[in-house]
Amino acid sequence: MAFTVKVPCSSANIGPGFDVIGLALSIYLELHVTTSAPSPSQPPTKLNCTVSYEGENADEVSLDPEVNLITRVALYVLRCHKQHAFPVPTHVHVKNPIPLGRGLGSSGAAVTAGVVLGNEIGNLGLNKARMLDYCLMIERHPDNVAAALYGGFVGTYLNELRPEDLAWKEIPLSEVLPAPAGGIDTGVKPPEPPIGIGHYKKFPWSKEIKAIAIIPDFELPTAKARECLPRMYSRADVIYNLQRATLLPSALSQDPLDPDMIYLAMQDKVHQPYRKHLVPGLTDILHSMNPTTQPGLLGICLSGAGPTILALATKNFAEIADRIVAQFKSHDITCRWELLEPANDGAVVERR
Amino acid sequence: MAFTVKVPCSSANIGPGFDVIGLALSIYLELHVTTSAPSPSQPPTKLNCTVSYEGENADEVSLDPEVNLITRVALYVLRCHKQHAFPVPTHVHVKNPIPLGRGLGSSGAAVTAGVVLGNEIGNLGLNKARMLDYCLMIERHPDNVAAALYGGFVGTYLNELRPEDLAWKEIPLSEVLPAPAGGIDTGVKPPEPPIGIGHYKKFPWSKEIKAIAIIPDFELPTAKARECLPRMYSRADVIYNLQRATLLPSALSQDPLDPDMIYLAMQDKVHQPYRKHLVPGLTDILHSMNPTTQPGLLGICLSGAGPTILALATKNFAEIADRIVAQFKSHDITCRWELLEPANDGAVVERR
Repeated sequence: MAFTVKVPCSSANIGPGFDVIGLALSIYLELHVTTSAPSPSQPPTKLNCTVSYEGENADEVSLDPEVNLITRVALYVLRCHKQHAFPVPTHVHVKNPIPLGRGLGSSGAAVTAGVVLGNEIGNLGLNKARMLDYCLMIERHPDNVAAALYGGFVGTYLNELRPEDLAWKEIPLSEVLPAPAGGIDTGVKPPEPPIGIGHYKKFPWSKEIKAIAIIPDFELPTAKARECLPRMYSRADVIYNLQRATLLPSALSQDPLDPDMIYLAMQDKVHQPYRKHLVPGLTDILHSMNPTTQPGLLGICLSGAGPTILALATKNFAEIADRIVAQFKSHDITCRWELLEPANDGAVVERR
Repeated sequence: MAFTVKVPCSSANIGPGFDVIGLALSIYLELHVTTSAPSPSQPPTKLNCTVSYEGENADEVSLDPEVNLITRVALYVLRCHKQHAFPVPTHVHVKNPIPLGRGLGSSGAAVTAGVVLGNEIGNLGLNKARMLDYCLMIERHPDNVAAALYGGFVGTYLNELRPEDLAWKEIPLSEVLPAPAGGIDTGVKPPEPPIGIGHYKKFPWSKEIKAIAIIPDFELPTAKARECLPRMYSRADVIYNLQRATLLPSALSQDPLDPDMIYLAMQDKVHQPYRKHLVPGLTDILHSMNPTTQPGLLGICLSGAGPTILALATKNFAEIADRIVAQFKSHDITCRWELLEPANDGAVVERR
């Protein structure tokens, strides 16, 4: 058996939609999976799984199947279904062009790929709605995982859970996947996700709009970028974001597009202002251009928790990117940029 | 000259969209306006205007043209254009079936009607975008006035203004319209609105959905209903409402409708929980039914600042209304209910 799992990267928040809006984009994590029949002549491998990796941060990614995030998540899914290791000898070759720790949903893609891998290799028959629950047990932010799983431009919400389910929802990965995850069978089944942790809705997206990702050459851990957020928000700031987040989905699909409305609808007071010290030049970059000064530009925001900047535009892509790259450069930050399109399919399995 | 100004009532918030979302509904404020040529045989009337009124709270509404909200707003618009009274002898007969102080946008409709009246009688040629600025100088909440002016189901946002414009925005009506409004010419021109205070976007609305308004027989002043709101909100509550408000507009127009998604997308943690002591039975009513227990129901919310309850539904309207009426009755509150439809045209002028 041989198959490929393909999962897009994603950009969360898109300005005012903090922890709500996600956009799947055209950089793809791929798992090239091959299985073989068990053979007495082959020495058994740990958990019946080997991992190889090429791509971003290759020297830092663990190839141990109980440490590697993708295979560890797959083992969690398998163990919830009474399979304590990979059911057949499996090799997972990971090709990952999604930069890590830059706000492009690399961990959301990895978690999604792991769930899809577990479902596929264990022949579990989970549908995407149920796979979303598994993803949300590990990655608590629905915007990235829903975009990675379903593709396209999505809005998400978490349901209100029973207190006992909420307790599950809050446990860290290390408890969901006790070490050694799937190793020695401790006899303790890991907690299965409650049904319907979160839901999503796909929004239309104007074909004209492309996303320019300007990717600085430093990592910003999401945990650090969340620590700097306030616990409480003023009513005025709440209303400010509610007004813009409500408008954004339809502003990004109306025909013809209204660039000024999109620009205003991408403003935010809930997370970007608090992260400016983590991304040098952020405030200037967010206000350096608008649709009047820069034809083709629709809006600029932090991608996820940053440091990547996402600019939505319909033309003059290189010019817009160059201006943002130059602003980062004036803060001694080197960047690369990529022109991306929405990835409409989300996570797919291709049998070879 | 004879013309009629017709302005719909409106319901603001619709659950999570606090100060954002407005829905124009099919109860209409009407001004029947007649003008006559100035005649030396007629004694001049105050400000060249007389007012008569029929409808809700008729014994409380002032017929003095410099006190009546509608004509006072018209005078403000006229005075911004160097007309210090009505330009010709004018009689305004107000027909108002919109209940006052119940959360159905009666003051938003009155302000909108006043601006339209001033524009029409003064032959000022203001477009609706500019009339929205005038409305927002007096009624600070864009959701009701944008719905009343433009009609339909709208999202709104206020722009960020220059500090000097913001100062204008925050002044109360009594200062915008100094007493005697338009009376003795003090030579001081009232402050004109800055351009582009707020904007709106019309969302699609599924034709199947009607609105049941359950209207208790007591008034709740908006100022009182705002006083009880907190100054600060937790990040979790902010995200909760952002997730739902972002989804609501597309949930209410998708085909086929998903009642469970609409029901969840109409939940709120920003204003309704804080207003439960002002509307006895509110918490029970909001959670008394859902689309599973009550086929046809889509969601229940407070209309504006209340006390009216708005239930969105596709069928079984009387049954849904009766259940809510009964719950109010168990708190000794008498209600009436009306089945309403979106008013798509907003404010219109019909020449007779």
